Amino acid sequence: MREITTLKWEKGNLLLLDQTLLPHTVTYVTCKNLEDVYQAIQTMIVRGAPAIGVAAGYGMVLAAGAYEETSEESFFDYLKAQGEYLKSSRPTAVNLMWAVDRIVKTAEGFSGQPFETVVKEIEAEAIAIHEEDKQTNRNIGMNLLSLLKDGDTVLTHCNAGSLATAEYGTALSVFYMAQEKGMNIKAYADETRPRLQGANLTAFELTEHGVDVTLICDNMAAVVMSQGKINAVIVGCDRVAANGDTANKIGTFSVSVLAKQFGIPVYIAAPTTTIDMDCPTGKEIPIEERSREEVLRINGEYIAPKEVKTYNLAFDVTPAEYITAIVTEKGIVYPSFRDNLKILMRK
Amino acid sequence: MREITTLKWEKGNLLLLDQTLLPHTVTYVTCKNLEDVYQAIQTMIVRGAPAIGVAAGYGMVLAAGAYEETSEESFFDYLKAQGEYLKSSRPTAVNLMWAVDRIVKTAEGFSGQPFETVVKEIEAEAIAIHEEDKQTNRNIGMNLLSLLKDGDTVLTHCNAGSLATAEYGTALSVFYMAQEKGMNIKAYADETRPRLQGANLTAFELTEHGVDVTLICDNMAAVVMSQGKINAVIVGCDRVAANGDTANKIGTFSVSVLAKQFGIPVYIAAPTTTIDMDCPTGKEIPIEERSREEVLRINGEYIAPKEVKTYNLAFDVTPAEYITAIVTEKGIVYPSFRDNLKILMRK
Repeated sequence: MREITTLKWEKGNLLLLDQTLLPHTVTYVTCKNLEDVYQAIQTMIVRGAPAIGVAAGYGMVLAAGAYEETSEESFFDYLKAQGEYLKSSRPTAVNLMWAVDRIVKTAEGFSGQPFETVVKEIEAEAIAIHEEDKQTNRNIGMNLLSLLKDGDTVLTHCNAGSLATAEYGTALSVFYMAQEKGMNIKAYADETRPRLQGANLTAFELTEHGVDVTLICDNMAAVVMSQGKINAVIVGCDRVAANGDTANKIGTFSVSVLAKQFGIPVYIAAPTTTIDMDCPTGKEIPIEERSREEVLRINGEYIAPKEVKTYNLAFDVTPAEYITAIVTEKGIVYPSFRDNLKILMRK
Repeated sequence: MREITTLKWEKGNLLLLDQTLLPHTVTYVTCKNLEDVYQAIQTMIVRGAPAIGVAAGYGMVLAAGAYEETSEESFFDYLKAQGEYLKSSRPTAVNLMWAVDRIVKTAEGFSGQPFETVVKEIEAEAIAIHEEDKQTNRNIGMNLLSLLKDGDTVLTHCNAGSLATAEYGTALSVFYMAQEKGMNIKAYADETRPRLQGANLTAFELTEHGVDVTLICDNMAAVVMSQGKINAVIVGCDRVAANGDTANKIGTFSVSVLAKQFGIPVYIAAPTTTIDMDCPTGKEIPIEERSREEVLRINGEYIAPKEVKTYNLAFDVTPAEYITAIVTEKGIVYPSFRDNLKILMRK
């Protein structure tokens, strides 16, 4: 098996597996400064809310190291400004905001200490974010697995796997934990237009890890579900509102409506860092609209007249009523999500 | 406006607009014999149930003209065998079967007449099928238009337009009839993976004809519907069973379930030739499974690991319960479809 580690922190540089070149080429991009990290997030060299969070942590380390002590701006003002800039690279993923704020808070905790100490503590915090994510993935996987039985088949959308996180993924961790436990859980992967993360990434990583996976086009989900081939839908998320409304890759809403229609449970794999208790409902989640070229071109080639109008939301919000449970590293949350998420987040 | 006539019968040859090269290139393929027509149907140079029916009619003319009078096989046995072969090019479209049978029956009606007379009558029948389809399109369009109001927006899937028929299309005829009547009906087009007929064909032909069209990926339908952007779903069909279950391009089932969820009517544009009263329910409609390469590759390039499993049904069957009305050239049919289709088909 090839090594397909999403993020590596080596000799003070952040190495990112370039996910825009998968499944054809496995190559790493080296980020030496915050701007490199910003660009990597925006162009989706690194993607997936948890992985973006980890990358952002290291991005802040690179920013801190680049501070000129002779600057008129104070270090903390500088760090905050750099963080705000980094946050603007992708507006929907709450982990990005969370990781930046956590680093800024850490730095502020060492106010008055020598600059080198503060930078060292920031680096330790970024590494902690990275390590915590690995453990979070494993716990989510175990909790998801408790909802399935041996031999089940799970439909997933987009990529909430190794490639979206530090190690096992959120949604896809269920397949890897099943392997560890000697259980057989099979996968159907939606290809996930327009960027085809299901085909490029999920089909790729599950195949690499020896998971039985069948790739379908997004519009095939209804027939596959109606034929009784799917026991559960498991997807990741970019942000969960306090009422359980969940922003995830465009198409999740469709899949969830279909699953409800066919009596199939929908589980959201959600690290608690993705749960935004300050966001009352899905209506308050900002949804990124991406370039029309993503719809009009595939592999650089136009599939439609160049001048045709498009509508390209990167995410959609699945209302809580279509969600069976939100599965976190701290436990499984059932409706009423408004009450039960509050209880979970107090733990 | 460029001429984008789907089928032309010129000097004893069938000219087909090569739809596999759209939207990039407008070019015609010349069919000089039945094998050419068989290949054109199978490789989807010509597609769409009504257009396949018209092409099949001319294919039978070409077959008839190629009969060797010295053959030991009788002309009628020969013609039937050629027809059976032609029917095998695509198993789902009932118009193909219908057109072949109509030509065979016409030929049999002139049994005992000179060979040249029979061939001439077959040609006249093929031309009649072609002309009838044009009028059918217009009538369906008018009936569809009676269900909408000025300013409405219609979501369509795949291509049931000019390119799928002799002239105005079935589902898309509503936009062209609206133009004739001075009404403004806007379109959203699903791109329709795996073969992207919505992007390649529908977005192309609506743009060519000056219809306001927005292209979306298949998985964006739920969010677009939930935002109140869609007033009706109008799609074509490949076969309607006696109970109203409807086979159409893969993804129609998904769109119909979503529409029902959001309270949006689903209208099936169905020439009566697509209604198969001998087929009791959708379960009896054979569904073509096509090559895995259609899912794995786009424009020739792999989008997923070559070895990954796929499941590629060309069509799905939307159960009658998700269909608001079946709109034919003879009138609009509402549930109970089992009773009302019977009444319509007796007219």
